Formats: sequence, structure tokens, C-alpha cells
Amino acid sequence: MRYLMTFSYDGSNYSGYQKQKRERSIQEEIEKVLSKINNKKTGVVASGRTDRKVHALNQSAHFDLDVKINEEKLKKSLNQMLPKDIYIKKIEAKNNDFHARFDVKKKLYIYKINIGEYNPLEKDYIYQYNKSLDVEEMRKNIKYFEGTNNFKTFCKGTSTDKDFVRTIFKANIKVNKDIVIISFLGTGFLRYMVRNMVGLLIEIGEGKKYNIKELFESEDRTRAGKIANPEGLYLKKVYY
Amino acid sequence: MRYLMTFSYDGSNYSGYQKQKRERSIQEEIEKVLSKINNKKTGVVASGRTDRKVHALNQSAHFDLDVKINEEKLKKSLNQMLPKDIYIKKIEAKNNDFHARFDVKKKLYIYKINIGEYNPLEKDYIYQYNKSLDVEEMRKNIKYFEGTNNFKTFCKGTSTDKDFVRTIFKANIKVNKDIVIISFLGTGFLRYMVRNMVGLLIEIGEGKKYNIKELFESEDRTRAGKIANPEGLYLKKVYY
Repeated sequence: MRYLMTFSYDGSNYSGYQKQKRERSIQEEIEKVLSKINNKKTGVVASGRTDRKVHALNQSAHFDLDVKINEEKLKKSLNQMLPKDIYIKKIEAKNNDFHARFDVKKKLYIYKINIGEYNPLEKDYIYQYNKSLDVEEMRKNIKYFEGTNNFKTFCKGTSTDKDFVRTIFKANIKVNKDIVIISFLGTGFLRYMVRNMVGLLIEIGEGKKYNIKELFESEDRTRAGKIANPEGLYLKKVYY
Repeated sequence: MRYLMTFSYDGSNYSGYQKQKRERSIQEEIEKVLSKINNKKTGVVASGRTDRKVHALNQSAHFDLDVKINEEKLKKSLNQMLPKDIYIKKIEAKNNDFHARFDVKKKLYIYKINIGEYNPLEKDYIYQYNKSLDVEEMRKNIKYFEGTNNFKTFCKGTSTDKDFVRTIFKANIKVNKDIVIISFLGTGFLRYMVRNMVGLLIEIGEGKKYNIKELFESEDRTRAGKIANPEGLYLKKVYY
């Protein structure tokens, strides 16, 4: 029996979503608990990884159990056994050909920046930039990220991926008091891609000039600014 | 030279504001840094303590330095040396007879309760009650806390205080989506007083019946419900 789970987590105290040797990961915590319930080693397949200190409001993963089990009861058992910074929001039965990574249609990421005074209560949840930014200039430039492009310039410099083409359907910026919220809705995102785009947008908000079209063409990571901190980033939703 | 500092902190990883043997406290962290800057053991006197895991948005404390120092520079130096979960917002020079505890006119506390789904990202900042509450019933009853009363029923059971009379000017409840925010503005608060009032209000929101007037008269802590968790409580402002 295949199941899809939707879950949220505080990434502050993890090395990232994906299992690592000698470091705590979200995946490992969930698999440990699921394996206990299923009475054998049970893996989960997520929509994709998130990096160290990155959060998720609605991450998705599938897993297989040998028996049919009541979804509500399973959710309750998992949440009782999981650490308090991981929470299963929903479990649904799925067909056996459903795949949490291959079937992703869209993903929504958001990034939060505090342009007001430093807030010690939000230091792990909102990037504490604590200076003003030219949001209008960022708004003009973020539009260049929309559409289908080769994102080699904006992924991890040492990436060994072969396909860098992704589509961003919608990229925009909201401001709520001192918090700037940047969102990207796309087919999928390469490693560090959102944080690299945000890093560039922050430099643009500081007054630096960049030609994003040219940067795309250059396929040169070193020309496109600094990566933004992880703690401001949230995987908000995965669409199937 | 006497100075007043306004500061915020995330209380999650502290035993409370006040210095303790063998446990981390906000006061100790600030005094350590201030003593380095002042080149001798330098104490701070706060408006009052906050308990383990309780937060402050604007706590106040005074301290004395041997020399006059630029307030902005001092703020910057302190923040550079302090742990990231404590932040000095403002430093003002004061007359030598100013006292951060004795001169308090009013204090504002707020308490946050999540009545929606569990949120792992806010577990240390909003009490995760995660069930519905009869907020209208709570609103009716919170009004009994307003005015001048003997709060013995609502302070720490083992308190050795002599004066339990305090005035609450305003007590009210706001709801923002799934977050219930209870606020109390008063002359001062006894130990556990806000959390005991909130604990009782939560039981009232669950449907339990209490006669708050009678509870005041009883002066019996054991009759007035359970204490609410610390992580939902914030010292929001101290008025002089």
C-alpha cells in the first residue's frame, strides 16, 4: 500500500532533509519512526531535499506499508513518536504508481527577509538583514526569473547535474511591515537555486546593477552574487 | 552615569531572566558583557524577572558606568558581544535616581495560544493548544481580572510575598486566524500570575465553570486551575 504524507518541519537543528552519515536529518527521523510502525526498515521518498536550516511548511513524501492502515491513526502514531520539530499534517492512500518526486508538477518556495530591526526571536526563521532594501528595484528585476531558462548560473557552483532548464511560472515580492517575502512558483528548483536568486535580488536591492538576461547566458555562477542564508527559506507547497 | 536599556530576548534556552547558580540566565549574559566594557564587575537591575522559557519584546534594566559613553556605540558593542538570542534595542542616559524596578508604572504582558493545527516552527513561541476554545466565554470572564484585587489565588502557590494587591487596567483577547492573543496591562504582576490567569481562562474556554470573584475571595491557589505553559508568554512593554 502506497501513502503520501504532507509534513512541516523546523530545519534549524538538522543537516537538511536528506539522510547523511553522522548528522541528523529529517528523512532519518521519519524513517526511524515509520520503520518501527511497519516492523521493518521502511524508506520514504520526498519531493526533493531541503538544505541545512531550511524549513518546510508542506513537504511531501511517499512510502509503502505492507498493510492497509487507517490514515488518521497512522498520522497520530507518527506524530507521537516524532521529534517536536517535525509534524505530519496529512496522510493519503495513493495508487502504487504514484511517485512523490517524479510526479511533482509545481513547487512553491518563499524566502523571508527582515529589513527592520534585528529580532532575536526570529533569527532562525527570518533572514535578519536589518537594513533597508530598494524593493521596487527588486520587483522590477525578479520578473527576469520568470519563464523557461537554463539556470546553471543560479545553481550550486559544483553541480554535476546535466539538465539546468527549469520553468518559473511566477516570482513576486510582498512586503508586510518590515518583512519582505519573496516567492517562486516553478516546475522544480536546482540545488541552491532559490537562495542564489534571492542573494542576487538582495544585492540589487542594495543598489548593485546586474543584467539578469546576460547572467543567464553566461552560465557562470561566479558572476551572480552571493548565496542568501538558509534560515529565511521555506518549501511552502508541492503540487501534483 | 546611569543608563536605561530596553532589550528583547528569546527565553527558550535560558533558565529565566534572573541569575542562577549553574544555569544560563539573561541577566548573567548581559552582566558578563557589560562588565567587560566597564572593566569591572557591573550589575544590571531589571524591571522584574521573567521565568524559564518566557520571552521579552521590551524588557527594561538600568546599570551604572564610571564614564559617559555614546549610547549608540555602547548598544553596538553590547550587541556584538551578546549571544544572538538577546538584543539591546535602545540605551538612554538617566538621572542617578532612576530605578528600573521601583519606577515601573505599568507592564504589558501578552500570551499567545495556537487553537489551530500544531505548528513545529512555532512550538517555542506560541503555546500549542491545538484545539478550539470558546473565546467569547473567555472574553466575558477576563473582565473579572480588571481592577484592583488581592491576587493571592493567582500567584505562585508557595509565594512568601506579603503584598498580593495589584491593579490590572486592561485585560483583553484578540484572535488573529488561529492565534488567540491575551493581554494584561497592570501595575505589576506576581510570580506566575499571568500564566495562572491564562491557565484558568483556557479551562473556561474548554467549558469549565469558574466564579472568578469567588476565587479572588478564597485566596486559595489550588482552586484556580492549572498554570499555562511558559513559551506562550511575552513581556511586551514596561512603562515608566
